[in-house]
Amino acid sequence: MHDLTRELQQPNDTKIVMLVADGLGGLPPQPGGLTELETARTPHLDELARLGVCGGSIPVKPGVSPGSGPGHLALFGYDPLRYVIGRGALEATGIGFELQENDVAVRCNFCTLDADGKITDRRAGRIPTEQSGPLAVKLREISIPGVEVFVEPVKEHRFVVIFRGDALGGDVEDTDPQVTGVLPLEPVAANPASQRTAEAAAEFVKQACELLADQPQANGLTMRGFAPKPALPGYREVYGLRAAAVAVYPMYKGLARLVGMDVLGDAKTLDQQVQVIRDHWQQYDFFFLHFKYTDSTGEDGDFDAKVKQTEQFDTAIPQIMALKPDVTIVTGDHSTPAMWRAHSWHPVPTLLVADNCRTDPCQRFGESECLSGGLGQFEAKFLMVLALANAGRLGKYGA
Amino acid sequence: MHDLTRELQQPNDTKIVMLVADGLGGLPPQPGGLTELETARTPHLDELARLGVCGGSIPVKPGVSPGSGPGHLALFGYDPLRYVIGRGALEATGIGFELQENDVAVRCNFCTLDADGKITDRRAGRIPTEQSGPLAVKLREISIPGVEVFVEPVKEHRFVVIFRGDALGGDVEDTDPQVTGVLPLEPVAANPASQRTAEAAAEFVKQACELLADQPQANGLTMRGFAPKPALPGYREVYGLRAAAVAVYPMYKGLARLVGMDVLGDAKTLDQQVQVIRDHWQQYDFFFLHFKYTDSTGEDGDFDAKVKQTEQFDTAIPQIMALKPDVTIVTGDHSTPAMWRAHSWHPVPTLLVADNCRTDPCQRFGESECLSGGLGQFEAKFLMVLALANAGRLGKYGA
Repeated sequence: MHDLTRELQQPNDTKIVMLVADGLGGLPPQPGGLTELETARTPHLDELARLGVCGGSIPVKPGVSPGSGPGHLALFGYDPLRYVIGRGALEATGIGFELQENDVAVRCNFCTLDADGKITDRRAGRIPTEQSGPLAVKLREISIPGVEVFVEPVKEHRFVVIFRGDALGGDVEDTDPQVTGVLPLEPVAANPASQRTAEAAAEFVKQACELLADQPQANGLTMRGFAPKPALPGYREVYGLRAAAVAVYPMYKGLARLVGMDVLGDAKTLDQQVQVIRDHWQQYDFFFLHFKYTDSTGEDGDFDAKVKQTEQFDTAIPQIMALKPDVTIVTGDHSTPAMWRAHSWHPVPTLLVADNCRTDPCQRFGESECLSGGLGQFEAKFLMVLALANAGRLGKYGA
Repeated sequence: MHDLTRELQQPNDTKIVMLVADGLGGLPPQPGGLTELETARTPHLDELARLGVCGGSIPVKPGVSPGSGPGHLALFGYDPLRYVIGRGALEATGIGFELQENDVAVRCNFCTLDADGKITDRRAGRIPTEQSGPLAVKLREISIPGVEVFVEPVKEHRFVVIFRGDALGGDVEDTDPQVTGVLPLEPVAANPASQRTAEAAAEFVKQACELLADQPQANGLTMRGFAPKPALPGYREVYGLRAAAVAVYPMYKGLARLVGMDVLGDAKTLDQQVQVIRDHWQQYDFFFLHFKYTDSTGEDGDFDAKVKQTEQFDTAIPQIMALKPDVTIVTGDHSTPAMWRAHSWHPVPTLLVADNCRTDPCQRFGESECLSGGLGQFEAKFLMVLALANAGRLGKYGA
């Protein structure tokens, strides 16, 4: 599709706003009941549903529940089955580490080794973050000739290592043997181009074990998900859009950065996020706003809290609409039903408002009404094409 | 899909009729209102909607507005992103020139050159067709050894040149520099196989400039969109259908010819078109009828005229149904909302009537009702497969 958007893109002065309520879709507490979104009082979203066109967004393919990475890539118009963000790169992105072209990122776990060097606990007793964080920072003392090394704490036993340098391939096997009672595996390059990376990883492990030798729990480590910065074409090139992201959490800032969006401001609340958009309204063509709490409350299994967060999200709509965007989209990267306590595959309620969007009979924004919406059920990766078309930014295909 | 239709096709005596109202889909004058089709009084189409199954046809992909070429290829069952008709070939097709396998067609513009041979007007002052037509005909005097040359007037400053001969590749760069104040570019072959074509083009330009030397406006030309006849498998082979087309405009006759349909008759009116089908009912399995005026009135931005033309189209339905086709399809190649004055991406109202089509609740033929139709929203390229299935012409896939 990007070949098409590259070929057909037409610049103009329109503004597109994409509001993503993470994990927006839900399930009723019992069959036939109302979902979180349908339970919530959302007068402003309902008004948009009346003005616009609704449908159900399928994040990847029917039945596939995505993580945040593929969920957002799809919304950004990148086929999530084609563009894969390696685990290490996603972990680095998630903590706000800005990957460069010559980086390889690795997810690491502190583990517990016995006197023979065999693993007795693959997660070092899930060592609390207050203890593991300083240990990760201590590993910054490690020095490898010709390779710059970054060590970033994550949470509990998890941390990230980034190797930066020339000719560092990303194809190195995991060193986590997935069982206890054995030695951690050696880092093995899957191809010659990754040989230097494997050597750097081995050297890192060696020095780390020396630095950690006196630790009772976290005296070793395993490495998983070696990954370079993913090669994603940018918004300006594929869509002709100057794009900006306004998110609170590092993961979503990072994902937006990977597709060439500028990450704006340092908002902590939804009101502040809207203010950031308002402050930069003239400088950009496209704004991505990320709202996290519809997902986190769903993951907590807290139906009522998700309803409240959905109502909170609704309050931002009038401020956004006051900016008079030419195209407004409200969607989610996936469903997170409180009843399911996890990301799910269910199509995500989605609406698009634009002057020529061909509205439909939908009167409220909710899962059931969206079934009869004019967008039908569609793969999320097409949403950006629809946005561009409705913004008058796409020329005709063929004569 | 054609691998499948080749493998599964089963001959029988059924008849399929596909009625294409060009640019059929529309938009209401204001949100929540009725579209052109919904405003039109179409009792016969409504009756078909009740008898049959309805849906929304997505010409290419969500958000993509197609030209006539890809729009029709999709309806004919050819993936419009895979099968591309080059610009020159489409222009030749559009004026009814029947391309052969060893042809390369080129779109040409008359332009105005100054004493130094630099372009002062890329369109020769949009010279009127009455003047440009004879000039194009005059260029038929050009003779190139080993290459047959055809020159066909189009409109205003536009004409088409077709080079016919052995070993003429189609990859030659445009000679239009897209700006004035510079010389036209030389025709450059993009690969060795197109070298002879580039040479023929250069010779054509040289002789043309001599013939046009005394013209005040059209004393030069530029060439764009070099293209061979597209390689499209034919209806008989991929579907097992003897197919016929009944169209008034050359473009649609040409497109039908490219997929192996016989172009029948010389009808000028819809009634005459139906008569042509009636006259050939026994000789063919598949009939494509093209009705242009729902598109042209939409492009004119004339909502009321499009409504009238839609009503006109409706009058043909009883005559078609009197022939008792086994499968009747009514659709459009794209939407052309009068409010948009151009081809658009909006799904096209589509209906299919057949004995075993599994009807749906749709009571009228229109954009909103089609949203709840049994065909759902589907990519146009699947319509022919549905037609064959409903005609009992497709066997089971796998055991």
